[in-house]
Amino acid sequence: MGMNMTEKILATHAGLKEVAAGQLVTCKLDMVLANDVTAPPSFKEFEKIGGPVFDNTKIVLVPDHFTPNKDIKSAGLSKAVRDFVNKHNIINYFEVGRGGIEHVILPEKGIVAPGMLTIGADSHTCTYGALGGFSTGVGTTDLAVALATGEAWFKVPEAIKVKLTGTKPAGITGKDVMLTLIDMIGVDGALYKTLEFSGEGVHSLSMDDRLTIANMAIEAGGKNGIFPVDEVTLAYIKNRVKKPYTIIESDADAKYCRTVTINLNELVPVVAFPHLPGNTKKVDEIGDIKIDQVVIGSCTNGRIEDMRIAAQILKGHTVHKDVRCIVIPGSQQVYKESIKKGYIDIFIDAGAAVSTPTCGPCLGAHMGILAAGERCVSTTNRNFRGRMGHVDSEVYLAGPQVAAASAILGKIAQPKDLQ
Amino acid sequence: MGMNMTEKILATHAGLKEVAAGQLVTCKLDMVLANDVTAPPSFKEFEKIGGPVFDNTKIVLVPDHFTPNKDIKSAGLSKAVRDFVNKHNIINYFEVGRGGIEHVILPEKGIVAPGMLTIGADSHTCTYGALGGFSTGVGTTDLAVALATGEAWFKVPEAIKVKLTGTKPAGITGKDVMLTLIDMIGVDGALYKTLEFSGEGVHSLSMDDRLTIANMAIEAGGKNGIFPVDEVTLAYIKNRVKKPYTIIESDADAKYCRTVTINLNELVPVVAFPHLPGNTKKVDEIGDIKIDQVVIGSCTNGRIEDMRIAAQILKGHTVHKDVRCIVIPGSQQVYKESIKKGYIDIFIDAGAAVSTPTCGPCLGAHMGILAAGERCVSTTNRNFRGRMGHVDSEVYLAGPQVAAASAILGKIAQPKDLQ
Repeated sequence: MGMNMTEKILATHAGLKEVAAGQLVTCKLDMVLANDVTAPPSFKEFEKIGGPVFDNTKIVLVPDHFTPNKDIKSAGLSKAVRDFVNKHNIINYFEVGRGGIEHVILPEKGIVAPGMLTIGADSHTCTYGALGGFSTGVGTTDLAVALATGEAWFKVPEAIKVKLTGTKPAGITGKDVMLTLIDMIGVDGALYKTLEFSGEGVHSLSMDDRLTIANMAIEAGGKNGIFPVDEVTLAYIKNRVKKPYTIIESDADAKYCRTVTINLNELVPVVAFPHLPGNTKKVDEIGDIKIDQVVIGSCTNGRIEDMRIAAQILKGHTVHKDVRCIVIPGSQQVYKESIKKGYIDIFIDAGAAVSTPTCGPCLGAHMGILAAGERCVSTTNRNFRGRMGHVDSEVYLAGPQVAAASAILGKIAQPKDLQ
Repeated sequence: MGMNMTEKILATHAGLKEVAAGQLVTCKLDMVLANDVTAPPSFKEFEKIGGPVFDNTKIVLVPDHFTPNKDIKSAGLSKAVRDFVNKHNIINYFEVGRGGIEHVILPEKGIVAPGMLTIGADSHTCTYGALGGFSTGVGTTDLAVALATGEAWFKVPEAIKVKLTGTKPAGITGKDVMLTLIDMIGVDGALYKTLEFSGEGVHSLSMDDRLTIANMAIEAGGKNGIFPVDEVTLAYIKNRVKKPYTIIESDADAKYCRTVTINLNELVPVVAFPHLPGNTKKVDEIGDIKIDQVVIGSCTNGRIEDMRIAAQILKGHTVHKDVRCIVIPGSQQVYKESIKKGYIDIFIDAGAAVSTPTCGPCLGAHMGILAAGERCVSTTNRNFRGRMGHVDSEVYLAGPQVAAASAILGKIAQPKDLQ
């Protein structure tokens, strides 16, 4: 009986020849991730277990949520992370100014690779499935055990095959693909399931598109999202991944509980209305919705392609007088590349604020919090009630092209509305 | 009987031929400033008075302290400012992304000029004395009255003449001049007094040096700091100030309560130890003091010259592994110029975080708050206990050259320590 990509990765890491959906397995972990919010609580659990970390080269700690420290409490959290890093000689630690947002820098720096099994104490750890690995978010206790033992248990998820046909048209982003999918299957449509992307449409998706899509697997309830490895993947990892990796392919007779087909040719720019990522509507059909803020960035859309798309649209325009536009390159590397390409100049000339890499506004932490009654178009991943600030504020999720056009027009818009 | 610069400006604006120290005068205001922290409380007082603002072209509102909004409360403050701006059609409003730190942008944009009388609900409003005007900080009630009437009352301050002799040596900054002066006269040495700078040494100070020095007049208790207008001033304002202005000079027989002389030739890099700006020590004489953070920016040292000095030192170096270095250009213009000159690339290559313009860490608001036991070298203006975070953290004030060298070495240092 054939296995899909996720089953194969879990089987290999569990030392088993075969696994099937529903089976409980204990796996060896290739990489364990945590951030300034999730790591400190796990340290307490870790200390109860005692002993050293399982492998100081397989742990990644990234202060990115409340950093640069927004207050005394977050300063204490960052300090706890730093103390742990020094005590256990953690190699992959990315201090403020030396890294960026965790899910942007792990692929960027080649820390995650095809075939790897990664867990992280952050729900968007599913991002790395874009590279053909299995990665998922875990809680504090699982993280603590993983830090000590290098192992974690999983129930092998059922898999949904997402078949992408056609070719992604110009002006459509990975975000449009994913918001459309979540609209189709619902925010619990993939609950504890794998979203395995396949079909010839995959090849028309850039790596940044795929990272955006895999990143939001959790927004459909997914345990993970996973992409096949193709020439786009190989080109991306070529100068990044320095260690051996394994390319996993699903068997022809692998089992799926459902198949969903999306014809990329038919996609249009969409926006997810408050207060769920599945409240997707076509920008064409929404009428005039005035906005107060735009956020372009995050682990979902803070990569160089997102900066490029936003810059191309903002070039020669100015941010609407009633709108704050906050642009956050996802990493120092994205930031530097954005300077080199002239994107940051464009943002500043347009009247946007460009922040140092941080998760900040996405989770309502800092760097662009909304007041009561305010509306934000954001390239982030969640628009739950109060997510970005006041309980009576609203977040509309969209891709960078919609966000940039909206910033200019002061209402939810798409690039063609600028003409 | 002759008058000094401050007396002349107050007399003119009070409609009087002559004033003398100690006299109470009511003056017409040329510019009234407030920020996201100080403006909203004044609006309540303003509403009690009722009526329109005195002049919508003579009010400047700048959200810079808790912006981009750090939390729901600050989002509400920013919204209150924005609502006031829209209601009263305030011309000089600088939204996030369109301005920067108030005391950086008012001189930069030519909003303040020689001979002007400016008040601001922010203690560092004294900055504009660098341009040969009178400017000082006021409280909420005075601000509210000023918004309604365009007037404020003052007790004419006594004046201290600060005579600068010699020439500022290479490697010495305006911050060294001012920290040395505060050391000499104490943090209450100029209590409700004018610090009038004079002497041939003035001409060797750049405009950015002077803005740093005038900015910190309040740290010696000064009502204001003021510089004569010379060729450096005129070059600075040439393409900035679009309105008529008046060059004021002190009379030869003007009265001063004290004269302090500083020979610029003798200055060395200094640092003000916790917890007062007057705890000044020579960097040469302090031994090894390990640090955790460096902040380069603020209304005191967030100008292009500060960025240049820091970049020249950081070039080819990396920030010490135990240090977070946070660089904050003081305005969008400084930010853009810093990109153009390659400074931001240098900062990123060195491993520094570059923030969008904000007051942030200076007042412990956000963007680099200290945990218990942490030490920061900062180019900001105050090192009071707990100013930048935890009550058990420490801030050491210094110029950008000392801050940059300290970031590299992980301890308080000066550029010559890098050799």
